Amino acid sequence: MRRMSGVLVLIFYILSLLLPLPTTTASSCCSIKGLPLVRNISELPQDNYGRGGLSHITLAGSAMHGLKEVEVWLQTFSPGSRTPIHRHSCEEIFVVLKGSGTLYLASSSHEKYPGKPQEYFVFANSTFHIPVNDVHQVWNTNEHEDLQMLVIISRPPVKVFIYEDWFMPHTAAKLKFPYYWDEQCLLEPPKDEL
Amino acid sequence: MRRMSGVLVLIFYILSLLLPLPTTTASSCCSIKGLPLVRNISELPQDNYGRGGLSHITLAGSAMHGLKEVEVWLQTFSPGSRTPIHRHSCEEIFVVLKGSGTLYLASSSHEKYPGKPQEYFVFANSTFHIPVNDVHQVWNTNEHEDLQMLVIISRPPVKVFIYEDWFMPHTAAKLKFPYYWDEQCLLEPPKDEL
Repeated sequence: MRRMSGVLVLIFYILSLLLPLPTTTASSCCSIKGLPLVRNISELPQDNYGRGGLSHITLAGSAMHGLKEVEVWLQTFSPGSRTPIHRHSCEEIFVVLKGSGTLYLASSSHEKYPGKPQEYFVFANSTFHIPVNDVHQVWNTNEHEDLQMLVIISRPPVKVFIYEDWFMPHTAAKLKFPYYWDEQCLLEPPKDEL
Repeated sequence: MRRMSGVLVLIFYILSLLLPLPTTTASSCCSIKGLPLVRNISELPQDNYGRGGLSHITLAGSAMHGLKEVEVWLQTFSPGSRTPIHRHSCEEIFVVLKGSGTLYLASSSHEKYPGKPQEYFVFANSTFHIPVNDVHQVWNTNEHEDLQMLVIISRPPVKVFIYEDWFMPHTAAKLKFPYYWDEQCLLEPPKDEL
């Protein structure tokens, strides 16, 4: 009888490895098991992570999909909303899908603080990238339309240093890690498997 | 007089560093100088690189923009056209913008050859990623529509191993480096600056 139950446990174990988990696990994050290889973007979990006017979706990422070298987000900013003034030591590429806005970019990481940034108009069907460690901010300055962008970063998960303003010293910028959308995955205690 | 011409050469040299090159240099590739930070995708150089049915645009890349960790392409495949069967030791993420097609994926890099691949339907507004070194092919199997995708790779420039069929041994796959769209930049001899 003991042997029989051992075989049953083994069968359940093998089945648990073979059978896909229900797709609802996608919304609970933090697991690559059970996520389909090809994912409908409309069905992926999206959230504003407490930031008004933001919609963030991780299309493929470190915490959820086990990627180690790149991560892709789909972000939508309602009119007037924006990223914080920030920097990170990874490469970042933007592809603007809809709307328009302003990129503020300070290339003065060799100075003590970012200083007055340069302004660039960004628009649907445009692309730009942020040099490693340059302080920047993207702002939907178009009053009438959402700004939607694909954002690609290297070296995930992102470690972000946030500035209160453009004249805050680099050394005073505050590290936010894990970043908002990685918090649930990276701060979750390991599951008790007993 | 000799001193005067030396000063003039110095002034021209400094000016050449300060002044942006005309934007037409974008089409000649291989230089980050003179490329605007924000680029209109419709104005970026596109080519089929000798592959019928393909349109390839590098939105942000290693050879042209000096990126070291990520590269983004916009690729359009006409009905029936496809990538070769291939593998690469970098991460790759696809975001399907238009059309539909089939992903063929063989996850058997531990075997001697890829073997019969699994088939996945890919469609507009879907996303998927290819595990490092898995042999794959993307095929526009939709007879009526172009298949357009954003393709993101890590560790650029890409080093591609190409297979003639799914039963070719991994060891016989042929390295293509530089890849078609990197050829002009990476094979160009250094310019004679005298």
